[in-house]
Amino acid sequence: MSTNNNALSFFALGGINEIGKNMYALQYADDIIVVDAGGKFPDESLLGIDLIIPDFTYLEENKEKIRGLILTHGHEDHIGAISYFLKKFEVPVYATHFTFGLVELKLNEHHLMGDSELVTIDSESKLELGQIGVSFFRVSHSIPDCLGIVFHTPEGNVVHTGDFKFDLTPANNQKTDIHKMAEIGRQGVLLLVSESTNAERKGLTPSEQMVGSHMDEAFMKATGKVFVSTFASNVSRVQQVVASAIKTNRKLALLGRSMVNVVQVAMERGYVDIPDGMLIDAKQIEDFTPERVAILCTGSQGEPMAALARLATGNYRDASIYPGDTVILAASPIPGNEKGVSKIIDNLFKLGANVIYGSGSSTGMHVSGHGYQEDLKLMLTLMQPTYFVPIHGEYRMLHHHRLLAESVGVEQGNTFIIKNGDVVDIEHGAARQTRSIPNGDTYVDGIGVGDVGDIVLRDRKQLSEDGMLVIVVTISKSDRKIVSGPDTISRGFVYARNSEELLKEVNSLATKAVNDLHGERQWNVMKQNIKKSVGQYLFRQTKRRPMILPIIIEI
Amino acid sequence: MSTNNNALSFFALGGINEIGKNMYALQYADDIIVVDAGGKFPDESLLGIDLIIPDFTYLEENKEKIRGLILTHGHEDHIGAISYFLKKFEVPVYATHFTFGLVELKLNEHHLMGDSELVTIDSESKLELGQIGVSFFRVSHSIPDCLGIVFHTPEGNVVHTGDFKFDLTPANNQKTDIHKMAEIGRQGVLLLVSESTNAERKGLTPSEQMVGSHMDEAFMKATGKVFVSTFASNVSRVQQVVASAIKTNRKLALLGRSMVNVVQVAMERGYVDIPDGMLIDAKQIEDFTPERVAILCTGSQGEPMAALARLATGNYRDASIYPGDTVILAASPIPGNEKGVSKIIDNLFKLGANVIYGSGSSTGMHVSGHGYQEDLKLMLTLMQPTYFVPIHGEYRMLHHHRLLAESVGVEQGNTFIIKNGDVVDIEHGAARQTRSIPNGDTYVDGIGVGDVGDIVLRDRKQLSEDGMLVIVVTISKSDRKIVSGPDTISRGFVYARNSEELLKEVNSLATKAVNDLHGERQWNVMKQNIKKSVGQYLFRQTKRRPMILPIIIEI
Repeated sequence: MSTNNNALSFFALGGINEIGKNMYALQYADDIIVVDAGGKFPDESLLGIDLIIPDFTYLEENKEKIRGLILTHGHEDHIGAISYFLKKFEVPVYATHFTFGLVELKLNEHHLMGDSELVTIDSESKLELGQIGVSFFRVSHSIPDCLGIVFHTPEGNVVHTGDFKFDLTPANNQKTDIHKMAEIGRQGVLLLVSESTNAERKGLTPSEQMVGSHMDEAFMKATGKVFVSTFASNVSRVQQVVASAIKTNRKLALLGRSMVNVVQVAMERGYVDIPDGMLIDAKQIEDFTPERVAILCTGSQGEPMAALARLATGNYRDASIYPGDTVILAASPIPGNEKGVSKIIDNLFKLGANVIYGSGSSTGMHVSGHGYQEDLKLMLTLMQPTYFVPIHGEYRMLHHHRLLAESVGVEQGNTFIIKNGDVVDIEHGAARQTRSIPNGDTYVDGIGVGDVGDIVLRDRKQLSEDGMLVIVVTISKSDRKIVSGPDTISRGFVYARNSEELLKEVNSLATKAVNDLHGERQWNVMKQNIKKSVGQYLFRQTKRRPMILPIIIEI
Repeated sequence: MSTNNNALSFFALGGINEIGKNMYALQYADDIIVVDAGGKFPDESLLGIDLIIPDFTYLEENKEKIRGLILTHGHEDHIGAISYFLKKFEVPVYATHFTFGLVELKLNEHHLMGDSELVTIDSESKLELGQIGVSFFRVSHSIPDCLGIVFHTPEGNVVHTGDFKFDLTPANNQKTDIHKMAEIGRQGVLLLVSESTNAERKGLTPSEQMVGSHMDEAFMKATGKVFVSTFASNVSRVQQVVASAIKTNRKLALLGRSMVNVVQVAMERGYVDIPDGMLIDAKQIEDFTPERVAILCTGSQGEPMAALARLATGNYRDASIYPGDTVILAASPIPGNEKGVSKIIDNLFKLGANVIYGSGSSTGMHVSGHGYQEDLKLMLTLMQPTYFVPIHGEYRMLHHHRLLAESVGVEQGNTFIIKNGDVVDIEHGAARQTRSIPNGDTYVDGIGVGDVGDIVLRDRKQLSEDGMLVIVVTISKSDRKIVSGPDTISRGFVYARNSEELLKEVNSLATKAVNDLHGERQWNVMKQNIKKSVGQYLFRQTKRRPMILPIIIEI
């Protein structure tokens, strides 16, 4: 792809103008390093789609140049596409101990374990991938073992932050390595690539430790069982719940598949510490008095099939919420999930629970894992880059991040706000963005990857809004007169039994459309005429536009 | 319905456990007074539905008892169902001058003007409707001319607040009549029915006047055109924009059908004052220098077809946003609309606009029209009711409102948290809730009212997620052998051209299902067998479950 064989290039295959599907790449000459392989959950307009992953076209065209995939951390929007990536590319994967714990859960599900080379690294590792040297620095986020990356290229150093905030008192001992970061900045950063999620929010992110004291307080006050719903991967938060449960002499049960799996991974790999004998099985909850039990459960985002939603409607087999129990929602709803979460809160109140919810500052049960404006400015200040590309955010976040960069000294004109696929090329110290590579959303639907496109989605949309009407006419081969039908079947449109008159007129319009052709063998014309006359009639009568499918059978 | 002919009853046909579709009723003996006739917009799970209105069953069964419909104010969630109501019920409608302005827009659209008796009232009106006397008091909200209602019944007085906040410095001169409210409370309130929208929010609602100074400031700073998007019905806000435009010597253009219509109503009826010569047509915008133009537009909720969304993508014919223009979003997104609004903000930034957005407190461009906790407590304190029914809110809001009531002296056990349809009966001073009347959502879909039910919606859902497959087989009448087919057509499932193998196997499974019956005339069994074998096969192959429609034609 390079216009010049020695140019340094950076591009995103996902993560720009969206939250999710993060995948970035750095290329120097014939060496490509891919950073992250994230998935994104579809919004409701993508009817029936299960997952969105990046378009791998460019990588497939340059397969032999890919030196490896580096994962910054284990969140879904950074590892959710890993199975689809590894089915296409035989390259080594570099990630931390905890990240691989979550990756292995995925690979096991897809029966891919053992197929790929998984190389465990930490913030002190150093790699040589083709002509590119790679080193790392530790950052704080809402999951253990997060990495920032430094790429040492002949053209200069490129820093990729990963997801981060500055937390000087994290709940674990994984402190941001500010001294190392200062040293990296001192040595000179040609290009900084930094995440932008909270670029609209003023101030500095609150510390995770704030959650601990509020959690303790809520546990002290609680008279019944205490349910806490949070992201299973937020291991620090899980550890804080363990601590509060210990202080109030409670056993701990885990509800929900991902809570059980991820806490298991965290325990096995030494990221969470739960005393022997403290964990109980969901089935044992009722054996203890309510004041002696705490429960960690999935479903903080309102997912209708997760533990919390089912508990809230009394449909969880092994546990129930009774009046006087406390339920803590220790996570903020991600934009788009507010309604689902509110519905659960309503149901919890109906059960008589004491529900602790609301935005971080008002309950203190959640802090964001993404740095606010002051965090972002601190990163920019430490790295003092010549060029800057804000990533990981919607356009307005990238826009604000650019303003922040300029406020701490990045020269105007040296920030590139890119789109997925746009390539920033740096050659002889000068950066420009003039070209793009193929990019887009690849839809995973059932086991199909990329086989559902715009036409199928457009059909689903029409079907979803107004339903459909199948009209079958059997016609004689010899004289093209109607032998049988028209027969109509409708679904998602109107009840047939309420609409006899309507369907009678549809049949007579279809009959007319067939007869009007006077025996000519023009099936497409006949179908078009049926669609048109029936469609117009139905719209006049119902103001709906069902999909009309004429089927002509010749016998 | 009454168990006793002289009981006083209150019930909701909409507005409880939801935001929207407000409709309440008070019945004493054989007199029913209906309050509000609101609509609700469907969420995305109600595929294709245009509007939700209350179920009128109980009212239809008691048509002859309805003495009138009183509208508290002109918001959609209080008047959106009026056309459907008036098509069913010939009763007088009582509302204020401004509310009728908005009602008439609706009735004209439905060609219903002149069919009903519309009686204009104000806060000093007194009515006698059957045995029930009715008087009113003025409340502040985010639309002019809002009423609270006092029902004087032989059993005692019932107060219905309507939507309200206490705003001691409203932007218009429609002050809340606190003295009158105190007097009503002093005389004794048997039952208070009060709205609960902001019962979760601490403090007192900020005054609308706060918006004025922030608006002025933004106009002063602006160097290009200023676009302000807000609810057209928030006439005070419109007036503040007019004031800021006058101060900065700008002409004013109105974009969007409802902005034009509602401002027209407000001008005609004297609720907004726009100097002669200030209003310009959208087509004239380009004739003025940018610093001399302000624009009020619809679309603050992210509606994709409204003016703001089209301006943001450069698809509005008569006006464009250029770099340096200012766009003010002077409204908060209603829960569920956040994503649509964010998308517009992104697009506005891409155009180079200076966008002022965000929650009320951070930009000062919006305040809520619904009272916070201290407002609600003040209402409860003024009215000092014996019984209390919180309305107009989701369950968690009603729950918090009950706690507020108890905190200011309403006796425990005297608050009734009801569901739509639940009836609170008061007899000889004692209230109880033991019975319910028919209630529910009536779906308006195209011109159909109530003809789309759960089966149609379930079908739409299946069609929307996995599409469908029609399988047509023609069978001979004489020996029940296949004459033609099976032929398959799929929509919203997979591209036929990518799936030849799949569809070939479908055809052979269908053929087998027909042949397995050895000529027996059991169409239903045949169809079931086709559905089952094809369905299982497709799920194994694709992990999708399209709707399968076998059509057997006998000739």
